[in-house]
Amino acid sequence: MAQEDINSLLVANARAGRFVARLKGGDPFVFGRGAEEVLACLRAGVAVTVVPGVSSVAAVPAAAGIPLTHRGIAQEFHVAAGHVAPDDERSSVNWRALASSPATLVLLMATEHLGAVADALIRYGRDPRTPVSVIADGTLPSQRTISTRLDTVARDVAHAAIGPPAVVVVGEVVTVSEQITELCGGLAAAAPWGTFVPADHYGNGTASSRDSKADREEGPRTGTAPAPGAAAND
Amino acid sequence: MAQEDINSLLVANARAGRFVARLKGGDPFVFGRGAEEVLACLRAGVAVTVVPGVSSVAAVPAAAGIPLTHRGIAQEFHVAAGHVAPDDERSSVNWRALASSPATLVLLMATEHLGAVADALIRYGRDPRTPVSVIADGTLPSQRTISTRLDTVARDVAHAAIGPPAVVVVGEVVTVSEQITELCGGLAAAAPWGTFVPADHYGNGTASSRDSKADREEGPRTGTAPAPGAAAND
Repeated sequence: MAQEDINSLLVANARAGRFVARLKGGDPFVFGRGAEEVLACLRAGVAVTVVPGVSSVAAVPAAAGIPLTHRGIAQEFHVAAGHVAPDDERSSVNWRALASSPATLVLLMATEHLGAVADALIRYGRDPRTPVSVIADGTLPSQRTISTRLDTVARDVAHAAIGPPAVVVVGEVVTVSEQITELCGGLAAAAPWGTFVPADHYGNGTASSRDSKADREEGPRTGTAPAPGAAAND
Repeated sequence: MAQEDINSLLVANARAGRFVARLKGGDPFVFGRGAEEVLACLRAGVAVTVVPGVSSVAAVPAAAGIPLTHRGIAQEFHVAAGHVAPDDERSSVNWRALASSPATLVLLMATEHLGAVADALIRYGRDPRTPVSVIADGTLPSQRTISTRLDTVARDVAHAAIGPPAVVVVGEVVTVSEQITELCGGLAAAAPWGTFVPADHYGNGTASSRDSKADREEGPRTGTAPAPGAAAND
């Protein structure tokens, strides 16, 4: 459905006296066209409340053990959509500026043009060995993670037959998830729901994230979660 | 409390057989040191589940009517902490790269060094007239928003006596919130909770966000919210 038709539907239903909830996957103001819908409603005399959401920008990397910032590694992060190639006239992303930034780079909708994006970053000066992680189906039971480098990511993604939806993280923070994976016996970063189980959790050095969920829920665990006033999960 | 002491507390309580919930304001992996705590727990043999949260990065601008991306305006955004000045040796942020980027720039913890940050961006080439919005106490009843320009933001923030916590948004997306404010009779962007009420909502062109919350909850409204499976509010 075209965006204009969605706007019309929202306005028509609100004017008919209905309380309209427009649900988005993720955050409505992060690649969500939420402000377009707010403007359309206000122009039609309809009041709007925007409820922020959990964006895949941070939630999907977290599910793979990748922080967007980490002391001594990254104090900043950059989020861009890669749904148009760097040389496409519709792209306004300044890949040259990105290549020279030490910031963690998060790419959404980027699998299709990943080769061209990686090439552009390398051409503009980013180290070809920069760690890259690609998380497909993030937070779902089918979640898969590939950890590789900027110069080989396109080949590896093609080889693993990874397609949308996927989140791509470029930067040294990927090495944090590699530490987490190692502590979990090599498999933890592939576990969905951001659950990480240390290899010596059962005292024999062999447990891994492949254990059943029920097994994993035994024993002491620690949850790192947002405060209740700030957010919640579903 | 020092981060190491927090880590020790988490581990000690988990080892004592307790289910430990470590609550964060915002997202644990966005300037939250969440991964440091995960690593500390895993090294101690303690399993961890990370629950993503709603970060102030997007939620606070949304509460002021500012989308981080908007078609035709910005396809990318950059998030940096401004708690150390650009010329401080502890800063790893590449302000030069940021100045040449068309991305929306979100600054956290930036009010103290805002003058130095704005000067650096202008010195490296960013237009001094770039729109800037500063949102203090975002999403709280005491929320205040200042919309200004890069070359005057430090003066305006000092004049308004705005201090932490505040989120600073630099970029053309600020003009979207100005459109929203205008449609709401000039006051909407000051309304907390991301509620925007059009000036002609009651048919007389005089209603504004200063109306009581009870008044505002009458009549047709539209909620732009994340889908239930992706997020929730409290």
